[in-house]
Amino acid sequence: MAEHPNLISRTVSKYRAREVAAQTDHLAVEEPLDIRLSNGGPARSVAITMRTPGDDANLARGFLFTEGILGARTPVQCEETKSNVVTVCLPPAEAIDWSRLNRHSYTSSSCGVCGKTSLEQVYQTIPFGNAPRTLLVPPEVLYSLPNKLRAAQVLFAQTGGIHAAGLFTPQGELLHFAEDVGRHNAFDKLIGHYHARQALPLDAHVLLLSGRASFELIQKAGMAGIGLVAAVGAPSSLAVQLAEELGITLVGFLREGRFNCYGGKERLERN
Amino acid sequence: MAEHPNLISRTVSKYRAREVAAQTDHLAVEEPLDIRLSNGGPARSVAITMRTPGDDANLARGFLFTEGILGARTPVQCEETKSNVVTVCLPPAEAIDWSRLNRHSYTSSSCGVCGKTSLEQVYQTIPFGNAPRTLLVPPEVLYSLPNKLRAAQVLFAQTGGIHAAGLFTPQGELLHFAEDVGRHNAFDKLIGHYHARQALPLDAHVLLLSGRASFELIQKAGMAGIGLVAAVGAPSSLAVQLAEELGITLVGFLREGRFNCYGGKERLERN
Repeated sequence: MAEHPNLISRTVSKYRAREVAAQTDHLAVEEPLDIRLSNGGPARSVAITMRTPGDDANLARGFLFTEGILGARTPVQCEETKSNVVTVCLPPAEAIDWSRLNRHSYTSSSCGVCGKTSLEQVYQTIPFGNAPRTLLVPPEVLYSLPNKLRAAQVLFAQTGGIHAAGLFTPQGELLHFAEDVGRHNAFDKLIGHYHARQALPLDAHVLLLSGRASFELIQKAGMAGIGLVAAVGAPSSLAVQLAEELGITLVGFLREGRFNCYGGKERLERN
Repeated sequence: MAEHPNLISRTVSKYRAREVAAQTDHLAVEEPLDIRLSNGGPARSVAITMRTPGDDANLARGFLFTEGILGARTPVQCEETKSNVVTVCLPPAEAIDWSRLNRHSYTSSSCGVCGKTSLEQVYQTIPFGNAPRTLLVPPEVLYSLPNKLRAAQVLFAQTGGIHAAGLFTPQGELLHFAEDVGRHNAFDKLIGHYHARQALPLDAHVLLLSGRASFELIQKAGMAGIGLVAAVGAPSSLAVQLAEELGITLVGFLREGRFNCYGGKERLERN
Protein backbone atom coordinates (compact mmCIF):
# COMPACT_ATOMS: atom_id res chain seq x y z
CA MET A 1 0.00 0.00 0.00
CA ALA A 2 1.33 3.44 -0.93
CA GLU A 3 2.31 5.63 1.97
CA HIS A 4 -0.05 8.49 2.71
CA PRO A 5 1.82 11.79 3.17
CA ASN A 6 0.18 12.31 6.54
CA LEU A 7 1.18 8.96 7.94
CA ILE A 8 4.48 8.09 9.56
CA SER A 9 5.49 4.46 9.84
CA ARG A 10 7.20 3.37 13.01
CA THR A 11 8.18 0.17 14.73
CA VAL A 12 6.33 -0.16 18.03
CA SER A 13 6.28 -2.78 20.76
CA LYS A 14 2.89 -4.43 20.87
CA TYR A 15 2.08 -5.89 24.28
CA ARG A 16 -0.65 -8.54 24.21
CA ALA A 17 -1.31 -10.34 27.50
CA ARG A 18 2.09 -11.87 28.32
CA GLU A 19 3.63 -11.43 24.84
CA VAL A 20 5.58 -8.54 23.28
CA ALA A 21 6.23 -8.20 19.56
CA ALA A 22 7.87 -5.52 17.43
CA GLN A 23 5.47 -4.43 14.69
CA THR A 24 5.05 -1.59 12.23
CA ASP A 25 2.44 0.96 13.19
CA HIS A 26 1.23 4.18 11.56
CA LEU A 27 0.98 7.55 13.24
CA ALA A 28 -1.08 10.53 12.15
CA VAL A 29 1.18 13.49 11.44
CA GLU A 30 0.81 16.47 13.79
CA GLU A 31 2.69 19.71 13.12
CA PRO A 32 2.19 23.33 14.12
CA LEU A 33 0.72 25.84 11.69
CA ASP A 34 1.10 29.60 12.01
CA ILE A 35 -1.91 31.27 10.35
CA ARG A 36 -1.07 34.76 9.07
CA LEU A 37 -3.23 37.39 7.45
CA SER A 38 -2.40 40.41 5.30
CA ASN A 39 -4.36 43.04 3.41
CA GLY A 40 -1.40 44.53 1.64
CA GLY A 41 0.77 45.40 4.63
CA PRO A 42 3.04 42.98 6.48
CA ALA A 43 1.34 39.70 7.32
CA ARG A 44 0.20 39.40 10.92
CA SER A 45 0.07 36.13 12.82
CA VAL A 46 -3.45 35.48 14.08
CA ALA A 47 -3.28 31.95 15.44
CA ILE A 48 -1.11 28.92 15.88
CA THR A 49 -2.71 25.52 15.74
CA MET A 50 -1.38 21.97 15.96
CA ARG A 51 -2.72 20.34 12.82
CA THR A 52 -2.31 17.54 10.30
CA PRO A 53 -0.61 19.11 7.24
CA GLY A 54 -1.88 19.05 3.69
CA ASP A 55 -5.02 21.17 3.58
CA ASP A 56 -3.60 24.34 5.09
CA ALA A 57 -5.26 26.87 2.82
CA ASN A 58 -8.72 25.52 3.63
CA LEU A 59 -7.86 25.26 7.32
CA ALA A 60 -6.78 28.92 7.37
CA ARG A 61 -9.86 30.06 5.43
CA GLY A 62 -12.23 28.07 7.61
CA PHE A 63 -10.60 29.32 10.78
CA LEU A 64 -10.60 32.97 9.69
CA PHE A 65 -14.21 32.74 8.53
CA THR A 66 -15.56 30.97 11.63
CA GLU A 67 -13.75 33.50 13.82
CA GLY A 68 -15.61 36.24 11.97
CA ILE A 69 -12.46 37.74 10.43
CA LEU A 70 -13.32 36.83 6.84
CA GLY A 71 -16.82 37.30 5.52
CA ALA A 72 -18.58 34.53 3.59
CA ARG A 73 -17.75 36.32 0.32
CA THR A 74 -14.46 37.99 1.22
CA PRO A 75 -12.15 37.56 -1.77
CA VAL A 76 -8.83 35.87 -1.06
CA GLN A 77 -5.94 36.85 -3.34
CA CYS A 78 -3.43 34.26 -2.28
CA GLU A 79 -2.81 31.47 0.18
CA GLU A 80 0.83 30.50 0.58
CA THR A 81 2.10 27.70 2.77
CA LYS A 82 5.80 27.56 3.55
CA SER A 83 7.53 25.83 6.44
CA ASN A 84 4.39 25.48 8.55
CA VAL A 85 3.31 29.07 7.97
CA VAL A 86 0.22 29.80 5.87
CA THR A 87 -0.38 33.38 4.75
CA VAL A 88 -3.81 34.46 3.56
CA CYS A 89 -3.70 37.66 1.49
CA LEU A 90 -6.71 39.90 1.00
CA PRO A 91 -6.95 42.79 -1.46
CA PRO A 92 -5.62 46.03 0.09
CA ALA A 93 -9.10 47.53 -0.10
CA GLU A 94 -10.45 44.77 2.15
CA ALA A 95 -10.71 46.07 5.71
CA ILE A 96 -9.75 43.60 8.44
CA ASP A 97 -11.45 43.89 11.79
CA TRP A 98 -8.39 42.95 13.85
CA SER A 99 -10.35 43.58 17.02
CA ARG A 100 -12.35 40.43 16.34
CA LEU A 101 -9.20 38.50 17.07
CA ASN A 102 -9.52 39.58 20.67
CA ARG A 103 -12.39 37.17 21.17
CA HIS A 104 -9.88 34.37 21.36
CA SER A 105 -7.08 36.73 22.23
CA TYR A 106 -4.65 35.90 19.48
CA THR A 107 -1.99 38.50 18.90
CA SER A 108 1.40 37.10 18.26
CA SER A 109 4.38 37.76 16.11
CA SER A 110 6.21 34.51 16.66
CA CYS A 111 5.47 30.81 16.90
CA GLY A 112 7.61 29.09 19.47
CA VAL A 113 6.71 25.64 18.22
CA CYS A 114 6.59 26.34 14.48
CA GLY A 115 10.28 26.40 13.69
CA LYS A 116 12.77 23.62 13.28
CA THR A 117 14.13 24.22 16.76
CA SER A 118 10.72 23.83 18.37
CA LEU A 119 11.40 20.58 20.21
CA GLU A 120 14.68 21.97 21.43
CA GLN A 121 12.90 25.03 22.80
CA VAL A 122 10.33 22.95 24.64
CA TYR A 123 13.11 20.79 25.97
CA GLN A 124 14.91 23.81 27.41
CA THR A 125 11.79 24.81 29.30
CA ILE A 126 11.45 21.57 31.26
CA PRO A 127 12.30 22.42 34.87
CA PHE A 128 13.23 18.98 36.15
CA GLY A 129 15.13 17.48 33.24
CA ASN A 130 14.36 14.00 32.03
CA ALA A 131 12.64 11.70 34.50
CA PRO A 132 14.92 9.08 36.07
CA ARG A 133 14.91 5.61 34.55
CA THR A 134 14.32 3.93 37.89
CA LEU A 135 10.55 3.65 37.51
CA LEU A 136 9.52 0.10 36.65
CA VAL A 137 5.92 -0.84 35.86
CA PRO A 138 4.78 -4.36 34.95
CA PRO A 139 2.55 -4.48 31.82
CA GLU A 140 -0.09 -6.24 33.91
CA VAL A 141 -0.40 -3.12 36.07
CA LEU A 142 -0.92 -0.94 32.99
CA TYR A 143 -3.61 -3.26 31.65
CA SER A 144 -5.64 -2.64 34.81
CA LEU A 145 -5.53 1.18 34.81
CA PRO A 146 -8.30 2.24 32.37
CA ASN A 147 -10.95 0.30 34.26
CA LYS A 148 -9.81 1.85 37.55
CA LEU A 149 -10.00 5.36 36.13
CA ARG A 150 -13.39 4.72 34.55
CA ALA A 151 -14.73 3.38 37.84
CA ALA A 152 -13.69 6.60 39.57
CA GLN A 153 -15.11 8.90 36.89
CA VAL A 154 -18.51 9.97 38.14
CA LEU A 155 -19.00 12.50 35.36
CA PHE A 156 -18.05 10.11 32.57
CA ALA A 157 -20.39 7.44 33.84
CA GLN A 158 -23.26 9.91 33.72
CA THR A 159 -22.50 11.71 30.48
CA GLY A 160 -20.13 9.64 28.35
CA GLY A 161 -18.63 12.94 27.31
CA ILE A 162 -15.78 13.97 29.54
CA HIS A 163 -12.05 13.41 29.63
CA ALA A 164 -9.91 12.47 32.59
CA ALA A 165 -6.27 12.43 33.64
CA GLY A 166 -5.29 10.09 36.48
CA LEU A 167 -2.09 9.60 38.43
CA PHE A 168 -1.22 6.08 39.64
CA THR A 169 1.53 4.45 41.67
CA PRO A 170 3.72 1.88 39.86
CA GLN A 171 1.63 -0.71 41.69
CA GLY A 172 -1.53 0.58 40.04
CA GLU A 173 -3.12 2.53 42.87
CA LEU A 174 -5.07 5.61 41.75
CA LEU A 175 -3.77 8.61 43.70
CA HIS A 176 -5.69 11.49 42.13
CA PHE A 177 -7.60 12.30 38.98
CA ALA A 178 -9.37 15.23 37.35
CA GLU A 179 -12.17 15.45 34.80
CA ASP A 180 -12.97 18.06 32.18
CA VAL A 181 -14.66 18.45 28.82
CA GLY A 182 -11.18 19.34 27.54
CA ARG A 183 -8.26 16.90 27.60
CA HIS A 184 -5.72 19.61 28.30
CA ASN A 185 -7.78 21.05 31.11
CA ALA A 186 -8.15 17.70 32.87
CA PHE A 187 -4.38 17.28 32.84
CA ASP A 188 -3.76 20.89 33.94
CA LYS A 189 -6.13 20.35 36.89
CA LEU A 190 -4.18 17.24 37.90
CA ILE A 191 -0.82 19.02 37.64
CA GLY A 192 -2.20 22.07 39.46
CA HIS A 193 -3.34 19.82 42.33
CA TYR A 194 0.25 18.65 42.85
CA HIS A 195 1.71 22.10 42.22
CA ALA A 196 -0.42 23.46 45.07
CA ARG A 197 1.09 20.75 47.34
CA GLN A 198 4.63 21.49 46.11
CA ALA A 199 4.74 17.84 45.07
CA LEU A 200 6.27 18.20 41.60
CA PRO A 201 7.99 16.44 39.85
CA LEU A 202 5.75 13.38 39.54
CA ASP A 203 8.60 11.14 38.42
CA ALA A 204 7.71 8.07 40.47
CA HIS A 205 4.22 7.80 39.00
CA VAL A 206 2.23 6.69 35.98
CA LEU A 207 -0.05 9.10 34.13
CA LEU A 208 -3.18 7.82 32.39
CA LEU A 209 -4.96 9.96 29.81
CA SER A 210 -8.50 8.98 28.77
CA GLY A 211 -8.06 10.13 25.17
CA ARG A 212 -5.34 10.53 22.58
CA ALA A 213 -1.82 11.78 23.26
CA SER A 214 -0.93 15.01 21.46
CA PHE A 215 2.22 17.12 21.43
CA GLU A 216 0.78 19.51 23.99
CA LEU A 217 -0.10 16.75 26.46
CA ILE A 218 3.41 15.28 26.27
CA GLN A 219 4.82 18.76 26.73
CA LYS A 220 2.75 19.14 29.91
CA ALA A 221 3.89 15.69 31.09
CA GLY A 222 7.48 16.77 30.53
CA MET A 223 6.93 19.92 32.58
CA ALA A 224 5.55 17.84 35.45
CA GLY A 225 8.51 15.44 35.27
CA ILE A 226 6.37 12.41 34.48
CA GLY A 227 8.31 9.39 33.18
CA LEU A 228 5.50 7.16 31.92
CA VAL A 229 2.48 8.40 30.00
CA ALA A 230 -0.24 5.91 29.05
CA ALA A 231 -3.11 6.94 26.80
CA VAL A 232 -6.30 5.09 25.97
CA GLY A 233 -6.17 6.60 22.47
CA ALA A 234 -3.56 7.02 19.74
CA PRO A 235 -0.49 9.24 19.93
CA SER A 236 0.34 11.74 17.20
CA SER A 237 3.67 11.79 15.36
CA LEU A 238 4.86 14.82 17.29
CA ALA A 239 3.82 13.32 20.63
CA VAL A 240 6.02 10.28 19.93
CA GLN A 241 8.90 12.50 18.81
CA LEU A 242 8.71 14.73 21.89
CA ALA A 243 8.36 11.78 24.27
CA GLU A 244 11.54 10.37 22.78
CA GLU A 245 13.39 13.67 23.24
CA LEU A 246 12.23 13.92 26.84
CA GLY A 247 12.91 10.28 27.70
CA ILE A 248 9.25 9.67 28.48
CA THR A 249 7.87 6.15 28.10
CA LEU A 250 4.80 6.48 25.87
CA VAL A 251 2.03 3.88 25.78
CA GLY A 252 -1.03 4.16 23.53
CA PHE A 253 -4.25 2.24 22.81
CA LEU A 254 -4.16 0.97 26.39
CA ARG A 255 -6.92 -1.43 27.38
CA GLU A 256 -7.42 -4.67 29.31
CA GLY A 257 -4.70 -7.05 28.10
CA ARG A 258 -3.11 -4.90 25.39
CA PHE A 259 -1.25 -1.71 24.52
CA ASN A 260 1.39 -0.34 22.16
CA CYS A 261 4.63 1.12 23.47
CA TYR A 262 6.08 3.89 21.29
CA GLY A 263 9.37 4.29 23.13
CA GLY A 264 11.05 3.92 26.51
CA LYS A 265 10.01 0.32 27.10
CA GLU A 266 12.83 -0.19 29.59
CA ARG A 267 10.35 1.10 32.20
CA LEU A 268 7.99 -1.76 31.31
CA GLU A 269 10.23 -4.73 32.09
CA ARG A 270 8.44 -7.53 33.81
CA ASN A 271 8.88 -8.37 37.46
CA MET B 1 -29.00 9.81 43.05
CA ALA B 2 -27.81 13.27 44.11
CA GLU B 3 -27.10 15.67 41.28
CA HIS B 4 -23.45 16.35 40.60
CA PRO B 5 -22.79 20.10 40.27
CA ASN B 6 -21.15 19.54 36.88
CA LEU B 7 -24.06 17.65 35.40
CA ILE B 8 -27.13 19.12 33.78
CA SER B 9 -30.24 17.00 33.40
CA ARG B 10 -32.20 17.34 30.23
CA THR B 11 -34.99 15.57 28.42
CA VAL B 12 -33.74 14.22 25.10
CA SER B 13 -35.36 12.26 22.29
CA LYS B 14 -33.81 8.81 22.10
CA TYR B 15 -34.08 7.27 18.64
CA ARG B 16 -33.66 3.49 18.61
CA ALA B 17 -34.30 1.76 15.27
CA ARG B 18 -37.89 2.79 14.47
CA GLU B 19 -38.80 4.03 17.96
CA VAL B 20 -38.47 7.45 19.61
CA ALA B 21 -38.79 8.00 23.36
CA ALA B 22 -38.34 11.06 25.56
CA GLN B 23 -35.84 10.29 28.31
CA THR B 24 -33.72 12.13 30.83
CA ASP B 25 -30.07 12.44 29.93
CA HIS B 26 -27.10 14.10 31.63
CA LEU B 27 -24.74 16.59 30.04
CA ALA B 28 -21.26 17.52 31.21
CA VAL B 29 -21.12 21.23 32.03
CA GLU B 30 -18.91 23.35 29.76
CA GLU B 31 -18.30 27.01 30.56
CA PRO B 32 -15.59 29.51 29.66
CA LEU B 33 -12.90 30.43 32.16
CA ASP B 34 -10.79 33.57 31.97
CA ILE B 35 -7.42 32.88 33.67
CA ARG B 36 -5.86 36.06 35.04
CA LEU B 37 -2.54 36.65 36.72
CA SER B 38 -1.27 39.43 38.98
CA ASN B 39 1.90 40.16 40.93
CA GLY B 40 0.54 43.16 42.78
CA GLY B 41 -0.54 45.27 39.82
CA PRO B 42 -3.81 44.93 37.94
CA ALA B 43 -4.58 41.34 36.98
CA ARG B 44 -3.86 40.50 33.35
CA SER B 45 -5.82 37.96 31.34
CA VAL B 46 -3.51 35.25 30.03
CA ALA B 47 -5.88 32.67 28.57
CA ILE B 48 -9.48 31.76 28.05
CA THR B 49 -10.42 28.12 28.07
CA MET B 50 -13.71 26.25 27.75
CA ARG B 51 -13.73 24.05 30.83
CA THR B 52 -15.86 22.06 33.26
CA PRO B 53 -16.20 24.27 36.37
CA GLY B 54 -15.30 23.29 39.91
CA ASP B 55 -11.53 22.93 40.05
CA ASP B 56 -10.60 26.32 38.66
CA ALA B 57 -7.73 27.14 40.98
CA ASN B 58 -5.91 23.92 40.09
CA LEU B 59 -6.69 24.38 36.42
CA ALA B 60 -5.20 27.87 36.49
CA ARG B 61 -2.12 26.73 38.42
CA GLY B 62 -1.54 23.75 36.17
CA PHE B 63 -1.96 25.85 33.04
CA LEU B 64 0.36 28.61 34.25
CA PHE B 65 2.97 26.09 35.36
CA THR B 66 2.92 23.97 32.21
CA GLU B 67 3.17 27.13 30.10
CA GLY B 68 6.34 28.00 32.01
CA ILE B 69 4.85 31.12 33.63
CA LEU B 70 4.88 29.77 37.19
CA GLY B 71 7.86 27.84 38.48
CA ALA B 72 7.42 24.55 40.32
CA ARG B 73 7.89 26.34 43.64
CA THR B 74 6.44 29.75 42.83
CA PRO B 75 4.35 30.80 45.84
CA VAL B 76 0.72 31.65 45.11
CA GLN B 77 -0.93 34.17 47.46
CA CYS B 78 -4.50 33.81 46.35
CA GLU B 79 -6.73 32.14 43.80
CA GLU B 80 -10.14 33.70 43.42
CA THR B 81 -12.88 32.45 41.16
CA LYS B 82 -15.81 34.75 40.40
CA SER B 83 -18.21 34.60 37.47
CA ASN B 84 -15.98 32.39 35.32
CA VAL B 85 -12.87 34.46 36.01
CA VAL B 86 -10.06 32.99 38.11
CA THR B 87 -7.33 35.31 39.33
CA VAL B 88 -4.00 33.91 40.51
CA CYS B 89 -2.07 36.38 42.70
CA LEU B 90 1.67 36.17 43.22
CA PRO B 91 3.67 38.15 45.77
CA PRO B 92 4.73 41.56 44.34
CA ALA B 93 8.37 40.47 44.54
CA GLU B 94 7.67 37.57 42.16
CA ALA B 95 8.74 38.51 38.64
CA ILE B 96 6.45 37.30 35.84
CA ASP B 97 7.99 36.54 32.48
CA TRP B 98 5.07 37.84 30.43
CA SER B 99 7.01 37.16 27.27
CA ARG B 100 6.54 33.42 27.83
CA LEU B 101 2.87 33.99 27.11
CA ASN B 102 3.80 34.71 23.54
CA ARG B 103 4.48 31.04 22.94
CA HIS B 104 0.77 30.48 22.67
CA SER B 105 0.13 34.10 21.87
CA TYR B 106 -2.27 34.97 24.63
CA THR B 107 -2.64 38.67 25.31
CA SER B 108 -6.16 39.72 25.96
CA SER B 109 -8.03 42.08 28.16
CA SER B 110 -11.51 40.76 27.57
CA CYS B 111 -13.28 37.46 27.19
CA GLY B 112 -16.02 37.57 24.61
CA VAL B 113 -17.52 34.30 25.69
CA CYS B 114 -17.02 34.63 29.47
CA GLY B 115 -19.82 37.04 30.28
CA LYS B 116 -23.53 36.58 30.57
CA THR B 117 -24.05 37.99 27.11
CA SER B 118 -21.69 35.51 25.48
CA LEU B 119 -24.30 33.51 23.61
CA GLU B 120 -25.92 36.71 22.45
CA GLN B 121 -22.58 37.93 21.10
CA VAL B 122 -21.96 34.70 19.21
CA TYR B 123 -25.46 34.89 17.86
CA GLN B 124 -24.90 38.39 16.52
CA THR B 125 -21.82 37.20 14.61
CA ILE B 126 -23.65 34.56 12.57
CA PRO B 127 -23.72 35.85 8.98
CA PHE B 128 -26.63 33.85 7.61
CA GLY B 129 -29.07 33.86 10.49
CA ASN B 130 -30.72 30.64 11.63
CA ALA B 131 -30.83 27.82 9.09
CA PRO B 132 -34.24 27.33 7.45
CA ARG B 133 -36.48 24.61 8.86
CA THR B 134 -37.06 23.05 5.46
CA LEU B 135 -34.34 20.41 5.79
CA LEU B 136 -35.83 17.00 6.53
CA VAL B 137 -33.68 13.95 7.24
CA PRO B 138 -35.06 10.49 8.05
CA PRO B 139 -33.46 8.88 11.14
CA GLU B 140 -32.53 5.90 8.98
CA VAL B 141 -30.27 8.15 6.91
CA LEU B 142 -28.52 9.41 10.04
CA TYR B 143 -27.95 5.85 11.29
CA SER B 144 -25.95 5.15 8.14
CA LEU B 145 -23.59 8.14 8.24
CA PRO B 146 -20.83 7.11 10.69
CA ASN B 147 -20.00 3.98 8.71
CA LYS B 148 -19.84 5.98 5.49
CA LEU B 149 -17.48 8.53 7.00
CA ARG B 150 -15.30 5.82 8.52
CA ALA B 151 -15.08 4.02 5.19
CA ALA B 152 -13.81 7.22 3.56
CA GLN B 153 -11.27 8.00 6.29
CA VAL B 154 -7.95 6.67 5.03
CA LEU B 155 -5.99 8.22 7.89
CA PHE B 156 -8.27 6.92 10.59
CA ALA B 157 -8.18 3.39 9.24
CA GLN B 158 -4.40 3.46 9.41
CA THR B 159 -3.86 5.26 12.70
CA GLY B 160 -7.01 5.10 14.79
CA GLY B 161 -6.10 8.57 15.93
CA ILE B 162 -7.59 11.26 13.78
CA HIS B 163 -10.81 13.21 13.71
CA ALA B 164 -13.03 13.94 10.75
CA ALA B 165 -15.84 16.26 9.74
CA GLY B 166 -18.06 15.18 6.83
CA LEU B 167 -20.83 16.90 4.91
CA PHE B 168 -23.73 14.81 3.62
CA THR B 169 -26.86 15.36 1.56
CA PRO B 170 -30.21 14.73 3.31
CA GLN B 171 -30.24 11.46 1.37
CA GLY B 172 -27.00 10.37 3.05
CA GLU B 173 -24.49 10.95 0.25
CA LEU B 174 -21.04 12.02 1.44
CA LEU B 175 -20.10 15.23 -0.41
CA HIS B 176 -16.81 16.17 1.22
CA PHE B 177 -14.84 15.47 4.39
CA ALA B 178 -11.63 16.55 6.08
CA GLU B 179 -9.36 14.85 8.59
CA ASP B 180 -7.10 16.27 11.29
CA VAL B 181 -5.59 15.39 14.65
CA GLY B 182 -7.72 18.27 15.98
CA ARG B 183 -11.50 18.26 15.87
CA HIS B 184 -11.73 21.99 15.29
CA ASN B 185 -9.20 21.86 12.48
CA ALA B 186 -11.04 19.10 10.63
CA PHE B 187 -14.21 21.19 10.70
CA ASP B 188 -12.37 24.39 9.71
CA LYS B 189 -10.87 22.55 6.72
CA LEU B 190 -14.34 21.45 5.64
CA ILE B 191 -15.78 24.94 5.98
CA GLY B 192 -12.74 26.45 4.24
CA HIS B 193 -13.29 24.09 1.31
CA TYR B 194 -16.79 25.49 0.78
CA HIS B 195 -15.73 29.06 1.53
CA ALA B 196 -13.18 28.81 -1.30
CA ARG B 197 -16.04 27.78 -3.61
CA GLN B 198 -18.31 30.58 -2.35
CA ALA B 199 -20.72 27.80 -1.42
CA LEU B 200 -21.71 28.94 2.07
CA PRO B 201 -24.17 28.66 3.79
CA LEU B 202 -24.42 24.86 4.01
CA ASP B 203 -28.06 24.95 5.09
CA ALA B 204 -29.30 22.06 2.93
CA HIS B 205 -26.80 19.59 4.35
CA VAL B 206 -26.03 17.37 7.32
CA LEU B 207 -22.76 17.70 9.21
CA LEU B 208 -21.19 14.68 10.88
CA LEU B 209 -18.48 15.11 13.52
CA SER B 210 -16.40 12.07 14.49
CA GLY B 211 -16.03 13.11 18.14
CA ARG B 212 -17.89 15.10 20.75
CA ALA B 213 -19.79 18.33 20.14
CA SER B 214 -18.44 21.33 22.05
CA PHE B 215 -19.52 24.96 22.17
CA GLU B 216 -16.85 25.95 19.66
CA LEU B 217 -17.90 23.34 17.10
CA ILE B 218 -21.54 24.45 17.29
CA GLN B 219 -20.39 28.05 16.95
CA LYS B 220 -18.53 27.09 13.75
CA ALA B 221 -21.59 25.20 12.48
CA GLY B 222 -23.68 28.30 13.12
CA MET B 223 -21.21 30.44 11.16
CA ALA B 224 -21.46 28.05 8.21
CA GLY B 225 -25.27 28.09 8.36
CA ILE B 226 -25.57 24.36 9.04
CA GLY B 227 -29.00 23.25 10.26
CA LEU B 228 -28.28 19.70 11.43
CA VAL B 229 -25.19 18.67 13.36
CA ALA B 230 -24.71 14.99 14.20
CA ALA B 231 -21.86 13.88 16.45
CA VAL B 232 -20.60 10.40 17.19
CA GLY B 233 -19.77 11.54 20.73
CA ALA B 234 -21.55 13.45 23.49
CA PRO B 235 -22.47 17.14 23.39
CA SER B 236 -21.55 19.51 26.21
CA SER B 237 -24.09 21.62 28.09
CA LEU B 238 -23.04 24.77 26.25
CA ALA B 239 -23.16 23.04 22.87
CA VAL B 240 -26.80 22.11 23.51
CA GLN B 241 -27.61 25.62 24.71
CA LEU B 242 -26.02 27.30 21.70
CA ALA B 243 -27.60 24.87 19.23
CA GLU B 244 -30.97 25.78 20.72
CA GLU B 245 -30.27 29.53 20.37
CA LEU B 246 -29.19 29.07 16.76
CA GLY B 247 -32.03 26.73 15.82
CA ILE B 248 -29.59 23.94 14.98
CA THR B 249 -30.78 20.35 15.23
CA LEU B 250 -28.24 18.56 17.45
CA VAL B 251 -27.78 14.80 17.44
CA GLY B 252 -25.28 13.00 19.67
CA PHE B 253 -24.05 9.43 20.29
CA LEU B 254 -24.88 8.60 16.68
CA ARG B 255 -24.27 5.02 15.58
CA GLU B 256 -25.95 2.28 13.57
CA GLY B 257 -29.57 2.16 14.72
CA ARG B 258 -29.43 4.77 17.50
CA PHE B 259 -28.85 8.36 18.50
CA ASN B 260 -30.02 11.03 20.91
CA CYS B 261 -31.56 14.26 19.68
CA TYR B 262 -30.94 17.26 21.96
CA GLY B 263 -33.18 19.73 20.16
CA GLY B 264 -34.67 20.62 16.79
CA LYS B 265 -36.15 17.22 16.09
CA GLU B 266 -38.63 18.70 13.60
CA ARG B 267 -35.86 18.16 11.01
CA LEU B 268 -35.94 14.44 11.80
CA GLU B 269 -39.53 13.64 10.98
CA ARG B 270 -39.95 10.35 9.18
CA ASN B 271 -40.80 10.10 5.52
